[in-house]
Amino acid sequence: MKIEKIGEFGLIDLLKRRTFSQDKRVLVSVGDDAAVIKSCKDKLLIFTTDTMVEKVHFDLRYSTFKQVGWKAMVANLSDIAAMGGLPTFALVTIGLSKSMSVKNVLSIYDGITAVGKRYKCSVIGGDTVFSPQGVFVSIALLGEVEKKFLVKRSGAKSGDLICVTGDLGEAQAGLEFLKKNPRKKSPLVRKHLNPVPRINEARALVRNLKISSMIDISDGLSSELFHLTEESNLGAVIYQDKIPISSKCIKAGSFLGKSPLLWALSSGEEYELLFTLSRKELPSLEKVERKIKLSLIGEIVSKKEGVVLQQRSGKMRKLTKTGFKHF
Amino acid sequence: MKIEKIGEFGLIDLLKRRTFSQDKRVLVSVGDDAAVIKSCKDKLLIFTTDTMVEKVHFDLRYSTFKQVGWKAMVANLSDIAAMGGLPTFALVTIGLSKSMSVKNVLSIYDGITAVGKRYKCSVIGGDTVFSPQGVFVSIALLGEVEKKFLVKRSGAKSGDLICVTGDLGEAQAGLEFLKKNPRKKSPLVRKHLNPVPRINEARALVRNLKISSMIDISDGLSSELFHLTEESNLGAVIYQDKIPISSKCIKAGSFLGKSPLLWALSSGEEYELLFTLSRKELPSLEKVERKIKLSLIGEIVSKKEGVVLQQRSGKMRKLTKTGFKHF
Repeated sequence: MKIEKIGEFGLIDLLKRRTFSQDKRVLVSVGDDAAVIKSCKDKLLIFTTDTMVEKVHFDLRYSTFKQVGWKAMVANLSDIAAMGGLPTFALVTIGLSKSMSVKNVLSIYDGITAVGKRYKCSVIGGDTVFSPQGVFVSIALLGEVEKKFLVKRSGAKSGDLICVTGDLGEAQAGLEFLKKNPRKKSPLVRKHLNPVPRINEARALVRNLKISSMIDISDGLSSELFHLTEESNLGAVIYQDKIPISSKCIKAGSFLGKSPLLWALSSGEEYELLFTLSRKELPSLEKVERKIKLSLIGEIVSKKEGVVLQQRSGKMRKLTKTGFKHF
Repeated sequence: MKIEKIGEFGLIDLLKRRTFSQDKRVLVSVGDDAAVIKSCKDKLLIFTTDTMVEKVHFDLRYSTFKQVGWKAMVANLSDIAAMGGLPTFALVTIGLSKSMSVKNVLSIYDGITAVGKRYKCSVIGGDTVFSPQGVFVSIALLGEVEKKFLVKRSGAKSGDLICVTGDLGEAQAGLEFLKKNPRKKSPLVRKHLNPVPRINEARALVRNLKISSMIDISDGLSSELFHLTEESNLGAVIYQDKIPISSKCIKAGSFLGKSPLLWALSSGEEYELLFTLSRKELPSLEKVERKIKLSLIGEIVSKKEGVVLQQRSGKMRKLTKTGFKHF
């Protein structure tokens, strides 16, 4: 059977049983944004990796080399944010062609260190390999989180509120905009090429609230909602008119003849955080909302209710996993 | 300027200055086999990564998928051995084509876990990405080492003895043998396709001896001798008749019309350990030698004497860095 038939998540399911270990020191392993290992006293070690391949995850017609490095690092930093932690150290592997210029290679590293420095994450080594066909950037990241602040994908309870940071749909809108206007600069394009990891937001959340589950939006809101609810064997209802879609995004939608709602549901690489918390946390949530942009978009329901969108009309519509599939 | 002009080590030199950080918690960073970070009490955390790309590091005409996984893991385990440590946890990234069979993908993971289990190193996560042109395997590994047992590339002193584990030249001999007889099985071929990381040997060394510097032989004895001596601003003399070359390797050399000595000097991916220690350690070294195969092949001298081979005739010959260049 070919790998494209079972897809990335089918492969992960197979590997869960035969490859991944159940070591007592490992608190979180495959199936979450990052692995978590017991460390010193009340600190836990977070360990994650994320790879971006030319023509699959990025296109050098639209991205500069610096942006490629930036985004590869953000994908990793975002995984640490999703666990409630802080990044510490990175190893960077770059697959290069022999004919690449030294300048361009250094630009990839500059993009990585530029966003790394903002979040006090240092590059301390890595590997450079020859890659005959196309560039790839693979980063392995360490981070740490206090035991009491660790948030996993699992942990949501029926009745919990569902929230999201920032605005949704912009990364996809930015990409589609770029495809029509390769040199155009706009805030939407920036969200696609220079996204920001929600480290500070994650820390504000875990410090001020009891977050029951969290995931970063790298495969699209809809897909991540399925991940989150499957981990806790629950369902979710989200309200169309609560999904944060910026006026820029709405304008881009009408300009390009696309649905901003569909962007918001399916846009990968948003690097916003999707999280749940008990209704009791509502007063504290309102306080945190003064500091960071948050939207309460729905609530956790029982599994039999499924994962649904309540439209403006009040009508319910079943969501599908429209997230980006790798194979 | 094209990257092939400055090569892998030229790139690392550039990156040392502009990319890699000087964090106080980082005891060892770029320029050694692995990064080392302060951890709990008397334990240090080792962090390393190594990537293998199809048609660059392996050829699917000669290797099975399981062997590709095995060897990618060994390259990483060997880096941990070179620091005197023990591996703990791995993240595995695989770049796959859509048309690959599920069976072959699982075989790569099986190779990784087969050798990982031998050394109590568990796979706890990773990433799978689509790679349009050719397979790649990138592994990030964590390990740990007691402060007192950490060995770096730097640390050798003039007059120190130079030793090596196992036999040399066999990995290269095995590869050349395979190129002539793709289906042939032989111990030399096994050394090329299923090498063994010297974790147990490294632990015996650091537990019983005061090792002043150590490196694993992934780019060839000659190249690693340059790395080791450059780190301490010294030179080295090695004796031709002390270099451990097995009778199998000598036989293969005469069969293929190649020089076994040249193989021993330049064979990459041997994953043997090259290390130095004070002459005072000689009695203890002899005790350790009863348990593991070791050869005393030379001694550290001053920088001005260079890195030289003393031939059987007594004549000195300058060595060159004949290690494998990636670009």
